[in-house]
Amino acid sequence: MNRSAVPPPVTQVMEAAESWLPRRMAQVESRLADVVTAGGERLGPDASATLEAGGKRLRPMLVLLCAGPEAGPGATRAAAAVELVHMATLVHDDVLDAAPLRRGRPTVFSESGRERATAVGDLLLSRAFAELAVGPPDPGEDAAAAGAERAASERQVAILADASVALALGELAQRRDAFDVGMDAERYLDRCLLKTARLFECACVIGRDEDATQEALAGFGTEIGLAFQMLDDVLDVSGPPERTGKARGTDLLDGTVTLPFIWAREEDPSLSEADLHELDAEGAEELCERIAATGALERVCAEARGRVQRAKDLVVSAPLDAGRRELLAMVADGVVERYS
Amino acid sequence: MNRSAVPPPVTQVMEAAESWLPRRMAQVESRLADVVTAGGERLGPDASATLEAGGKRLRPMLVLLCAGPEAGPGATRAAAAVELVHMATLVHDDVLDAAPLRRGRPTVFSESGRERATAVGDLLLSRAFAELAVGPPDPGEDAAAAGAERAASERQVAILADASVALALGELAQRRDAFDVGMDAERYLDRCLLKTARLFECACVIGRDEDATQEALAGFGTEIGLAFQMLDDVLDVSGPPERTGKARGTDLLDGTVTLPFIWAREEDPSLSEADLHELDAEGAEELCERIAATGALERVCAEARGRVQRAKDLVVSAPLDAGRRELLAMVADGVVERYS
Repeated sequence: MNRSAVPPPVTQVMEAAESWLPRRMAQVESRLADVVTAGGERLGPDASATLEAGGKRLRPMLVLLCAGPEAGPGATRAAAAVELVHMATLVHDDVLDAAPLRRGRPTVFSESGRERATAVGDLLLSRAFAELAVGPPDPGEDAAAAGAERAASERQVAILADASVALALGELAQRRDAFDVGMDAERYLDRCLLKTARLFECACVIGRDEDATQEALAGFGTEIGLAFQMLDDVLDVSGPPERTGKARGTDLLDGTVTLPFIWAREEDPSLSEADLHELDAEGAEELCERIAATGALERVCAEARGRVQRAKDLVVSAPLDAGRRELLAMVADGVVERYS
Repeated sequence: MNRSAVPPPVTQVMEAAESWLPRRMAQVESRLADVVTAGGERLGPDASATLEAGGKRLRPMLVLLCAGPEAGPGATRAAAAVELVHMATLVHDDVLDAAPLRRGRPTVFSESGRERATAVGDLLLSRAFAELAVGPPDPGEDAAAAGAERAASERQVAILADASVALALGELAQRRDAFDVGMDAERYLDRCLLKTARLFECACVIGRDEDATQEALAGFGTEIGLAFQMLDDVLDVSGPPERTGKARGTDLLDGTVTLPFIWAREEDPSLSEADLHELDAEGAEELCERIAATGALERVCAEARGRVQRAKDLVVSAPLDAGRRELLAMVADGVVERYS
């Protein structure tokens, strides 16, 4: 739902980054694999579908990039935890949408059914918080260092829990507004903040110590999160299906009204008379054409690009080393590029 | 699923306890209400169904009783968090079972549908961890006290996350073993540990500082958790429906094989030929009669009573004040009484 099959260019950033980033990303991947295999035979049949669910690991990369090469193991744990929350929501989304495929591969839902997929999502969400918990202190451990590690972990739990609450509230907002063709842009933005941007924001600050940079990075995360969601919503209308991996107008068929529709309605008020309950695949495609005809897609793209630019401006002013500022800008551009 | 409509005598313990316990329980209730109303209009229509979902607050009472009257606000937070995890699993269980009622009241699922109920469950689970997170330190705060509070909170996250992971693994185990009439008692116990006993165990230790008492209390929680589940499973077979609020053999209809069936099969091997896929309400009732005829229900009850006795023995040896030892024994007896 609301997500495209076209991956953001994480690979591009990985190639441009110094070796610490790919090394850390590999650590995150191995933690994720551990989580999935730690379930033993219980998770066996769903393990690969679960690991695939998250996709290109954009969020953990943001965690690591923002935390920087000096960050301790807490940042790697946080990166895995953020991705686990993301995976959990996708697994549950696929249950609700009865989705057979995600990124061209079978979903946990389609492999194992509603019951197991719901439990797998709950498991991933719980594991996310387990990731953040530091074990009991070693007898010989430096008390001050242990105390600092604990305080950091405690802060991470607060940040991740808030983001995870926001995701659920965003899902509830989406259900509340479903099929409401009169929904306004403010509600749309509110929902995108909850459903998408808050986890991006969380990713940008969770691996760092609290400092003055945090605000800029939080803003960066919010802006690219919103841009990401807006462009996803454009792709749902524009297609083509060969590229997005789903039929045009899938959101509309689900009753999900997004910014392209809302802005198109301003140009073509007859769209307010659409009844999404009555929509079939053909009708959805036709509605997409009417939305596109108003120029709303270009307007949403411009809005998203403006947000990406704002995100980049925020990073320029952040006291990070030039190399990481550049990589973050590359991530921001990547969000737009996956549309163009 | 696997849970009875007959409440354990929490009220009885509340009346016997000194005033600190009811006062703390009221604080927990008010935190739970805050969580549910903090979602604002989004959770509005489901708020009361959600608050009802947890029932009699047995788990938070265990948290508070084990933590004792001297415990800080961390214990109250932990009590609320444990109940939120419990509520989350019930809300998701009701989605999977498409359950119209729980304890005679409409479920979130029946009030608001699958989608909202799934999101509500995710929200409750996330909120549980948010409860445990202490806010940023006050400028004037005593650093040592703040450090200790953070370490405690961090430990609570680890304990709750592990229990919450266990719940999900238990659900997966139940799905794995569904309709397997040849399942053995070991698998049953493993599942009960994960699905039920681990959260009871968590409740008994999460509000305390780590100390020598912890092991005894953890054992207490495990034993009453197992007894609780076993007697629930007996009630599913014995009924009567007027008392349990559900038809006899509901578990069997779901394909869930429990200890009464497993031990009945030892006496009456023809039970191995039952095909639970083919079962209807009448067939389930008949199967319940056949199970009861073997004497398996009495055997399971005796096993559960033995566990309750072991739980009480563990508490006797724990260095707690006599008042609380008595109240914990009362809780343990309550688990049995709700059957008799």
